[in-house]
Amino acid sequence: MKKENVRVILWGLGAMGKGIAETLLTKKGVEIVGVAWRGERIGKSMYDYLDVERGDRKDVIIGTYEEVIKEGAADIVIISTDSFVKDNFDKIKYCLEKKINVISTAEEMAYPQAQEPELAKEMDRIAKENGVTVLGTGINPGLMMDLLVLVLTGACTDVKNIKVKRVNSLSPFGPAVLNGQGVGLEVEEFNKRVEEGTLAGHVGFPESITMIADALGWKLDNIELVREPIVTNVYRRTPYIEVEPGKVAGCNMKGYGYVDGELKIEMLHPQQIEPQLEGIDTGDYITIEGTPNINMSIKPEVPGGIGTIAMCVNMIPHVINASPGLKTMIDLPAPRAIVGDVRELID
Amino acid sequence: MKKENVRVILWGLGAMGKGIAETLLTKKGVEIVGVAWRGERIGKSMYDYLDVERGDRKDVIIGTYEEVIKEGAADIVIISTDSFVKDNFDKIKYCLEKKINVISTAEEMAYPQAQEPELAKEMDRIAKENGVTVLGTGINPGLMMDLLVLVLTGACTDVKNIKVKRVNSLSPFGPAVLNGQGVGLEVEEFNKRVEEGTLAGHVGFPESITMIADALGWKLDNIELVREPIVTNVYRRTPYIEVEPGKVAGCNMKGYGYVDGELKIEMLHPQQIEPQLEGIDTGDYITIEGTPNINMSIKPEVPGGIGTIAMCVNMIPHVINASPGLKTMIDLPAPRAIVGDVRELID
Repeated sequence: MKKENVRVILWGLGAMGKGIAETLLTKKGVEIVGVAWRGERIGKSMYDYLDVERGDRKDVIIGTYEEVIKEGAADIVIISTDSFVKDNFDKIKYCLEKKINVISTAEEMAYPQAQEPELAKEMDRIAKENGVTVLGTGINPGLMMDLLVLVLTGACTDVKNIKVKRVNSLSPFGPAVLNGQGVGLEVEEFNKRVEEGTLAGHVGFPESITMIADALGWKLDNIELVREPIVTNVYRRTPYIEVEPGKVAGCNMKGYGYVDGELKIEMLHPQQIEPQLEGIDTGDYITIEGTPNINMSIKPEVPGGIGTIAMCVNMIPHVINASPGLKTMIDLPAPRAIVGDVRELID
Repeated sequence: MKKENVRVILWGLGAMGKGIAETLLTKKGVEIVGVAWRGERIGKSMYDYLDVERGDRKDVIIGTYEEVIKEGAADIVIISTDSFVKDNFDKIKYCLEKKINVISTAEEMAYPQAQEPELAKEMDRIAKENGVTVLGTGINPGLMMDLLVLVLTGACTDVKNIKVKRVNSLSPFGPAVLNGQGVGLEVEEFNKRVEEGTLAGHVGFPESITMIADALGWKLDNIELVREPIVTNVYRRTPYIEVEPGKVAGCNMKGYGYVDGELKIEMLHPQQIEPQLEGIDTGDYITIEGTPNINMSIKPEVPGGIGTIAMCVNMIPHVINASPGLKTMIDLPAPRAIVGDVRELID
């Protein structure tokens, strides 16, 4: 058993970073030794941004990344600042070159091979050169629409096709997320933003679809993404927004993976505010047509925010224990909650 | 990519071994190079025992284990002859000492640390000495009531307790299985056999419960097992047995794992013939009380026979790629179906 605490640096303390920090503070054998962030937060206490009292814990003063991330300063850095590999790459490189392991919450980092194969190779090379490991994870991509699907196929001698559906509520989310999903827009505005490429919808389908295909051994021809407005028939309201009937209550994100011209992987991810007002039950649904067929449902859906926070924390030991390089969720042992002492999980 | 086929020896060609052989024959980049079995089958063709035509494939003549299992003869041996570690140990040792990797279908091998910690250490030592890997796997234990539970806890920042229920039908099974579950007995006979310890019920709860507890970091005080008769109120019949009302239609196996005197892991596995006659839906159900709560169901249940066959075949690349030693499902990358060429999955 490793006697010293596992030392974690957080890069970014937004909604995910904050949740990861608060979760780490409930765990035994792990310690937040630094927080890197920007602007006016520099020089302030991490506890100013958490819903946890400092108590008699040692303070953690937020610094620039150059101040905080130094060789030997930590066992792992958790970066929760970006969604896209391109934006995340320099930060990951910086940490790896300081010989520190990395977990990234960036959705595209769940399988960077999908859309950024060159950057993926480069990260793998840098990680190996420096003897450390980098993993992207989260609830989705990372578990609900990819790894969990694969685990269930483990019980199959053959797989013909896969359908995954994740129906969730955007009601807890604030303006940034609602804007990214087009909530509150007129249908024409929504469609215009889709055409312009400024409506993100869910980020992660190319990653989840490619991860599944690569893991099973399917050679994808192409991936198709569709973003459709969910038009409400009733008045819907959250603390952050009101939507009149006829306007957009959310985005129905669809992803299709084709193999030899045949639809093999279908992903549906309708996200909207107040789905229950039109009788929609939230949940995670996986249907595998194969030998045998498997029909899984989780109701309600595994919530996104807390799920991503959990995955990042729970994968810490697996990443520290892994051989050097870029890893994805299909390379490492299956995730599991950490209830006991984190040190006991380090080889 | 490894150019040669992955070479598999099967030790035992009963229901599981036969299914594994037939599945392997559908896969690319893998080859059955030998079958070890006993008695009158020696000298016969493997194809005499399969529902697959030999066609233009090279024949495989069944031999004794000494004839078939030799150093360099295969990449892996799949042993499907036993349920208990004690019965399985010498066979595993034999293969490991021939420097060949092993997958075992023995239920207790899914987590031999649970009930045979000394033999587990010994297997780990022998495997490491010979530079090979041994894994026990199957549908249950191995996936439905342990690894899948753990994967779902990966989305949790905290776990309070876990309930797992697997409701299945014994209708497809023959006399040996039905006898092991007490089907057809009078209630007193059933209870007498439970007292005498001659009614197996489901084998694997100590393994599943200990695997979950160890993976999460719970220190188990004790495990309790209960075998209750499922008494039918209606006449039930299968091709193998008839059961009158008032008699035993199956065994309700229950397992309880306690931590600090508190029930943390509850497992229910009622197995019976023709459950639908009393309105019982088969399925796999996982309930995690934690942050967040997770309620999963798979209906109908993932079938046992084909599921075990699939798990054994699908774990072949993971076992070949693994570092030497005794591994369990929580040490290796998550299972997934093999649809493509097995050779591409070998590092």
